[in-house]
Amino acid sequence: MLEPQRMIQDLIDLRTLTANEDGGQRVAWTPVWLKARQWFKDHLAELPVTVEQDPAGNLWATLPGESDVSLVMGSHLDCVPGGGWLDGCLGVIAGLAVLRRFAATGTKPPITIKVVDWADEEGARFGRSLLGSAAFAGNHSVEADRGRTDREGIRLEDAMRACGVDINRFPEAEKWRKNVGAYLELHIEQGPVLEQMNLPLGVVTGTKGVERHGITFFGQAAHSGATPMGLRHDALAACAKLSLEIYNIAGKHKDAVCTMGSVKTFPGIVTAVVGRCEATLDQRDLDPGNLAQMYSEAQAASKQFATEHGCTVEWAPIWTIEPIPFDPALLDFCEEAVFDASGTRHRLPSGPLHDAAEVARAGIPTVMIFTQSLRGISHNKIEDTRHEHLAQGVIALDKLADKTVAWLLAKG
Amino acid sequence: MLEPQRMIQDLIDLRTLTANEDGGQRVAWTPVWLKARQWFKDHLAELPVTVEQDPAGNLWATLPGESDVSLVMGSHLDCVPGGGWLDGCLGVIAGLAVLRRFAATGTKPPITIKVVDWADEEGARFGRSLLGSAAFAGNHSVEADRGRTDREGIRLEDAMRACGVDINRFPEAEKWRKNVGAYLELHIEQGPVLEQMNLPLGVVTGTKGVERHGITFFGQAAHSGATPMGLRHDALAACAKLSLEIYNIAGKHKDAVCTMGSVKTFPGIVTAVVGRCEATLDQRDLDPGNLAQMYSEAQAASKQFATEHGCTVEWAPIWTIEPIPFDPALLDFCEEAVFDASGTRHRLPSGPLHDAAEVARAGIPTVMIFTQSLRGISHNKIEDTRHEHLAQGVIALDKLADKTVAWLLAKG
Repeated sequence: MLEPQRMIQDLIDLRTLTANEDGGQRVAWTPVWLKARQWFKDHLAELPVTVEQDPAGNLWATLPGESDVSLVMGSHLDCVPGGGWLDGCLGVIAGLAVLRRFAATGTKPPITIKVVDWADEEGARFGRSLLGSAAFAGNHSVEADRGRTDREGIRLEDAMRACGVDINRFPEAEKWRKNVGAYLELHIEQGPVLEQMNLPLGVVTGTKGVERHGITFFGQAAHSGATPMGLRHDALAACAKLSLEIYNIAGKHKDAVCTMGSVKTFPGIVTAVVGRCEATLDQRDLDPGNLAQMYSEAQAASKQFATEHGCTVEWAPIWTIEPIPFDPALLDFCEEAVFDASGTRHRLPSGPLHDAAEVARAGIPTVMIFTQSLRGISHNKIEDTRHEHLAQGVIALDKLADKTVAWLLAKG
Repeated sequence: MLEPQRMIQDLIDLRTLTANEDGGQRVAWTPVWLKARQWFKDHLAELPVTVEQDPAGNLWATLPGESDVSLVMGSHLDCVPGGGWLDGCLGVIAGLAVLRRFAATGTKPPITIKVVDWADEEGARFGRSLLGSAAFAGNHSVEADRGRTDREGIRLEDAMRACGVDINRFPEAEKWRKNVGAYLELHIEQGPVLEQMNLPLGVVTGTKGVERHGITFFGQAAHSGATPMGLRHDALAACAKLSLEIYNIAGKHKDAVCTMGSVKTFPGIVTAVVGRCEATLDQRDLDPGNLAQMYSEAQAASKQFATEHGCTVEWAPIWTIEPIPFDPALLDFCEEAVFDASGTRHRLPSGPLHDAAEVARAGIPTVMIFTQSLRGISHNKIEDTRHEHLAQGVIALDKLADKTVAWLLAKG
């Protein structure tokens, strides 16, 4: 029997163990994170599973089945400093609940069932997110990452070694992909869409691609009192037009988003027209064509606005990732499972990235379920989901697991 | 005989003495500033004038006339760090040139002629501009100013004492207003208006009033990937609309200017919708009614834009000064003098404040002449005016001085 209430109690227990008054403190490669993992291992010890850490620091629990082909469920126990109780933990503890249900039958499942706790999804301390799942997927970047330092100057390589992980062995984590037939992840939405639609759960169609750029407008600093409006080269005005135009650019596509998250003005004093304005632009969509169009339109608009204000503009790439759609067959099973658990069905893309994106990039059939996120707030101690929605989430994951097992068996 | 070329050579000599490769270094209450003043005193020593420092540190040269009523010309020798060779110096050295011409006749002028070098016009080191002229005008703020500190933590009071000025005696500087009949100041425009109109000189109608405020838009920080465009409370978008609307607000009035010089975004990261946006707004016009209207319209617009983006907005005053119109009779004389010297006539208000504004506030008939400012650039080592325009400027000041003397005599 699946025990949704026990799962919720597990989440509460883990929060009690690893949060303080500022929120969750399970930052990867820290003592509190190791404490969370030990708590997880203590619970796994009650089950007939083997527990291993792969060379990238990912923690695996394996319930052997009749076949070596495996179904993997999971997410990450790490969180940002001051994070919530669900972002990451939910997928791991829900996986534990489903694992318990399989183990409770007393007979070997037809295929192998695994739960994984990916290492350092957030990248909160060293700035490299999806660290463990990327290594699993063959997308590690060891040479770029080993020298990353935290605020105290501690190197990632050394922080990992203190947790028993040797960054030089990262490439070996790829071997853990062997026989993995499918990957399922339950996660809190981290956005307001499901709450606005009054839906408990959502079927995640994939993770949006991201075009992330720095944009600098160059004008001419000038005395605020002595420079007539018509003779200004106001870099802020050009940038302001772009910050508004991105609403039109994103608005052409159903789920697209464009965000100007940072604006800096130079010289940035009350008595000077802005001579230089530095901004960031983050654009996301699940469709590669839409994403390319949005990027192109933003560039063209920036040039037009620069010209209108006697400025020039330069773009510099910050980071880019392609859209990663999830598996069509698993999406159908997931929609059935969500409907069975909640009586609702809704598909939506994920704006944030997840470990599931790395797993999917490696060619493993993957799908995710979102639970509603109250107020859409994430990476904050007030992050929350109603208990009834958490229960529906793990029930949907459980049903999805059964459907996926049957599918993998049928594939042979 | 007036000697315009000698005035230009004086300006060049003073630059050589007090600038380095970064520009002028005549920051008030520093050794370089004292060096500039000593250079000025050395030149005054060749004339039949008395040289005195008033209790606010203003330096006065007096050529006694038949009447105790005085005509004062002047400006300031101090500059911002890395400043140009004309902002301030021009009005003092041009005054010196006219003083020489009066002295060269060998007979007492009909009224007393004075040249003043106001102390600390720029406020570059301690953040209090118009320090000496404000004390003269009875607008000192000793208690607020004495504790001001520079970047090294040195107090204004102590820096002044090291230059022989006791801040406690500031109120006594008001006595120096006695018998002052008029004040004339030649200054570089510091803006692009005269250059755009191809005019060497301008008649300054007064200094614009200033409404200077801090504006904060409060929205909701949210994940850039997970938050649909329609569900955002984007504080940057609201602020961006205001940064553009100020062009419409200022555009209703001929010489009005509005400037958003600083924008700060919080949390200010590429992956978050801006939850809080802090901006500054500086509004200026010579007409008090226009200024009040612009301030009111900007407030109303900010509230509308905040509402449009699900935000709130708060305003906090930074600094305010009323418009200060110059004397109508002197404006007419000034226009005649400028026409006689250059064959052109154009009236314009000053956006930047000047010592002349403090003098005018004290009820003394005042007017200013601007010289063209190449590229409109100021507070920068590349600040410049063509030599022929400098010569026309001092010729105009000289003619204006004669007209003003005649006017003061006629007033009796």
